[in-house]
Amino acid sequence: MGEISVRDELAAFVAERDWAQFHSPENLAKSIAVEAGELLECFQWGAEASTERVREELADVLTYCMLLADRMGVDPNQIVLDKLALTREKYPVDKSRGRSEKYDVL
Amino acid sequence: MGEISVRDELAAFVAERDWAQFHSPENLAKSIAVEAGELLECFQWGAEASTERVREELADVLTYCMLLADRMGVDPNQIVLDKLALTREKYPVDKSRGRSEKYDVL
Amino acid sequence: MGEISVRDELAAFVAERDWAQFHSPENLAKSIAVEAGELLECFQWGAEASTERVREELADVLTYCMLLADRMGVDPNQIVLDKLALTREKYPVDKSRGRSEKYDVL
Amino acid sequence: MGEISVRDELAAFVAERDWAQFHSPENLAKSIAVEAGELLECFQWGAEASTERVREELADVLTYCMLLADRMGVDPNQIVLDKLALTREKYPVDKSRGRSEKYDVL
Repeated sequence: MGEISVRDELAAFVAERDWAQFHSPENLAKSIAVEAGELLECFQWGAEASTERVREELADVLTYCMLLADRMGVDPNQIVLDKLALTREKYPVDKSRGRSEKYDVL
Repeated sequence: MGEISVRDELAAFVAERDWAQFHSPENLAKSIAVEAGELLECFQWGAEASTERVREELADVLTYCMLLADRMGVDPNQIVLDKLALTREKYPVDKSRGRSEKYDVL
Repeated sequence: MGEISVRDELAAFVAERDWAQFHSPENLAKSIAVEAGELLECFQWGAEASTERVREELADVLTYCMLLADRMGVDPNQIVLDKLALTREKYPVDKSRGRSEKYDVL
Repeated sequence: MGEISVRDELAAFVAERDWAQFHSPENLAKSIAVEAGELLECFQWGAEASTERVREELADVLTYCMLLADRMGVDPNQIVLDKLALTREKYPVDKSRGRSEKYDVL
């Protein structure tokens, strides 16, 4: 199923509930941070986590990300690809291979 | 451009840099929270934010979400749709219309 | 040096810059989340982190926490002690000793 | 009641439950981010929030901050004051008065 379908499903869900009024970019950014905290909680005390729980929390983060992308009129896949092009330049393969340091210390 | 392509582009980017070793689910969950904080910073003092900056920070959150989905062998669009089905049940249209309260107080 | 002094130093710093206008509880809560993300970034790829950097980022989280406590008219130490009393009840020693599970699964 | 007492109360609470084993700096940094997300959730859809709920969530963030400070052998008040001295230099009164911009754009 393609991106369009998910976008349409989410838009219908929001419209049925008249929730667009709550979905300012600021509120969606807060919601992404709130859900990212719940995802992180799966790993609060260690590397092991319930796959089922991680999948649900990740879905929540993704949902608000897609709603924010839609609110801003951008395509989620396209902005990931655009940013990837910039990151490729900041982290050239020969300098960054096998290293987790930030670009400013590479 | 479909989801498959983004997934393949990200996988190639990671493989070229030998970065899969850093991408444990736990580290990716931390990365999502870190980037969600940077996205939130765009709105730290108010509702207005630079569109360009929001798009870049949102792309960073989405990138780590897609990497985590891939690491767990799930499709980002599918888990959003699966979760949406559950949320539809928790927030029936007649109870939740025009209200931002959580399901447990509706 | 006691809590009072830090509170007074922070209040003077804010007053000199006329920044109280930006310090709504909501903005301070966002700021705490933003700084918590920067603290987490110290540990993004593993358990090791620069002590100096952790100390600075932790100071930033604490600063906004103290500003929010002050804005709400509560004492930071007192609310920690009040919450600790509740947590002692939720996690009795005999049930929680040596276990990291949440109270609802203990 | 001074900082020493809170520190001692928290240390006793942790020791009774044998929880120091879970309190690596990394786990405490994750915990601070998780609790910061719960605090932010109070303001997810707007500026109004329950005072009682904010106080409890703020207490949780502060608790983990104090545990991390203790784990690193630093005094919470002192690192706030040390950081404040640095921030005073980055944000001179004449440049920053009444403005919320970051120091690099002032």
